[in-house]
Amino acid sequence: MQKDTGNPDNNPVRILVVGTGAVGGFYGSRLDQAGAEVTTVHRSDYTTVLESGIHIDSIDGPAHFRPKRVLRNVADYGDFPDYILVTLKSLPALDIASIIAPAVGPGTTIFLLQNGVDIEQPICNRFPDNEIVSGLAFICVSRSRPGQISHLCHGRLVIGSYPSGITPAVRQLAELFKKSKTPCPVSDSIVLERWRKLLWNAPFNPISVLTRTDTVQIMAQPEIVVLAREIMEEVCAVSNSLGHFLPQEAIEKNLAETRKMRPYRTSMLLDYEAGRPMEIEAIVGNIIKAAKNNGVKVPRLETMYSLLKLTASRK
Amino acid sequence: MQKDTGNPDNNPVRILVVGTGAVGGFYGSRLDQAGAEVTTVHRSDYTTVLESGIHIDSIDGPAHFRPKRVLRNVADYGDFPDYILVTLKSLPALDIASIIAPAVGPGTTIFLLQNGVDIEQPICNRFPDNEIVSGLAFICVSRSRPGQISHLCHGRLVIGSYPSGITPAVRQLAELFKKSKTPCPVSDSIVLERWRKLLWNAPFNPISVLTRTDTVQIMAQPEIVVLAREIMEEVCAVSNSLGHFLPQEAIEKNLAETRKMRPYRTSMLLDYEAGRPMEIEAIVGNIIKAAKNNGVKVPRLETMYSLLKLTASRK
Repeated sequence: MQKDTGNPDNNPVRILVVGTGAVGGFYGSRLDQAGAEVTTVHRSDYTTVLESGIHIDSIDGPAHFRPKRVLRNVADYGDFPDYILVTLKSLPALDIASIIAPAVGPGTTIFLLQNGVDIEQPICNRFPDNEIVSGLAFICVSRSRPGQISHLCHGRLVIGSYPSGITPAVRQLAELFKKSKTPCPVSDSIVLERWRKLLWNAPFNPISVLTRTDTVQIMAQPEIVVLAREIMEEVCAVSNSLGHFLPQEAIEKNLAETRKMRPYRTSMLLDYEAGRPMEIEAIVGNIIKAAKNNGVKVPRLETMYSLLKLTASRK
Repeated sequence: MQKDTGNPDNNPVRILVVGTGAVGGFYGSRLDQAGAEVTTVHRSDYTTVLESGIHIDSIDGPAHFRPKRVLRNVADYGDFPDYILVTLKSLPALDIASIIAPAVGPGTTIFLLQNGVDIEQPICNRFPDNEIVSGLAFICVSRSRPGQISHLCHGRLVIGSYPSGITPAVRQLAELFKKSKTPCPVSDSIVLERWRKLLWNAPFNPISVLTRTDTVQIMAQPEIVVLAREIMEEVCAVSNSLGHFLPQEAIEKNLAETRKMRPYRTSMLLDYEAGRPMEIEAIVGNIIKAAKNNGVKVPRLETMYSLLKLTASRK
C-alpha cells in the first residue's frame, strides 16, 4: 500500500524528525506506522533510542517505534529527506533554520509542528524556495523518561501550506496520518488556525504560570474568567486586523469548553515548573509585535508578557 | 512638658492602639515617649507584652515600651480614649468599625495609619460624628518575634484630617511625634498623599508578588519598568479624575528613586510569603472601583487585580 503515500516511484516517503521529544516521537511513530521511512535526531535520548527505540504508552494502545536511523545531529543524515518534521520548541535562543539547514535540499518540504504565531517567518526567510507545511497538534503527551512517551489524551492535527493553501505535500502528509488513524484535517488557512489555537493559549498559558494553577482553579475565580475573556478579545482584535477573522463566538466556545475540562496544567506551566524555557515569544510576544504593527491596543497581553519575562529571568 | 501635648488640663493624651503589630508597636512607643498614655490591644502577643512590654531594635537606638495597659480586647478598655490609633491591615474580612466600636466615644478621634485608598470610608460611615485623622507611615519595620520589633529604616509619617484639612487633633498628634523625634509633616490633602503613596505601591506590590521578586530584580527587567510606568499612569489618571492631582513628574521621580533603592521586598510580598492575607482591595481593588465610577480605563491594574485574586485563593 505504499502507493497511498503519494510517492510516484513507490519508494517510501523519507522523513527526518528534528527535536524528537514527546510530540516528535509520537507523530514520528505514526508516520512510521503509515509506511514512511522515519529518521530521528536526538539530543538527550540518543543512546537509549538507538538501543531500544521509543516506547509509547498511548490511550490508543501501546506502540514501539524503531526509527529507520537514529542520529545525534541533522548533518549526520547525509542526504536530503522529502520532509523535515520540526517539533522543537519555538524559542528565540533556538536558531531552527541553522539547525535544519544541513538536510534542507531543493525538494525538501519543511513541516513545522509547533505552537504560537509567526513561527514560520525565520524559516521562510532562510529557505524561500522550499515549501513550508505548518501544523498544530492538539494532544496531551509527555516524555516520561528517556525513550518513553506517555500519551494521555487527544492527538488531532491540523495542517496546511504556509502561508495558505492545500498543496500535494499537505495532502500526502494528511494521507500518511490517516493511514495511522491520526485525525489530520487540512486547512487552506493554517495561519487562521494558529490564531484560533492561540485564542486559548494566550490567556491560559500565562495565567497558569503567573498563578501556578490548573484550568479548574483558573475557571473557579470569576475575576480571572473576566481577564481570560478580555485577553481573548485582544487576540481576536489582532487576528482580525491581520485579516484572519475569529468570531466573537469562538471566545465563549473556548471558555465553555475550558469549564468542562478536567484539571489541566498548560505546557507553559509544565515548562516553568521543570525549569525549562517557556515559549513566551511564540505565544505572547509575537501577538504584541503584530498588534504594534497594526495599531491594535493589547494592554492585558503586554502586562502578561512583562510579568512572564521577569518570571523567566528569575529561574 | 505635658503642656506640649495640647491637652488643656495637663492630663496626658489617652491613646488606644488597636492592632499592635510592628507599626502599632513602633508608633505607640513613640507616642509613649512623648508623654501620652498609651494602651495597646493585642491578639497573639498579649501575654508576652503584658509580662515584658515591647522591645524595639531600632536604627535610632534600642527602646523598651511598657504600655500603660495591655489588653486582649478593645472592650476591655472600659472607657473612651482621646485617640484610637488603628494599625490593623486593611482587609475586607476585617470589620474595623465593629472592632473599635466599644471604645469610640463622642470625643474620640479615630487615627487610621494604614495603606491604600478609600480605607476611611467604612469608618466614616459608621462614626459620622467622630473626627478621622488619616495617616501614612513610610517605614521598614517588622515583628521579629512576640514582643520584639525590628526597625530597619525610615519612620516618617504624613497625617491630615479626613477628608481634608488640618485640625487641632492633627496638630496635637504631630506635636507628640515631634517630641519623640519622629518626622510627621501634616497635610491638608491627606487623600492626595494616599494616592501619591499608591503610585508606588500599586505597581510594585502586585509585580513583586506575581513574580516573587525584590525591587532590584524588578528594575533590572526593561519590560517590567515599562509596565510599572504604565500602571503608574493609570493610577495618575484615576487620581486626577477624582481631583487629586499627581503630576507626570511624580512617576519618573518614583522610578528613579526605586532604581537607587537597595533590594526591597514589598509588604505584599512579605505577606504572601508568610501566608498572610494581602491588602489587595486597599492597594489595587479600590483604585479599580474609583476608575469604574469615573469612567477611567485601567486594564493593567485590572489584570494585576485578577491575577492577585487567583494567587490569594491558592494559598
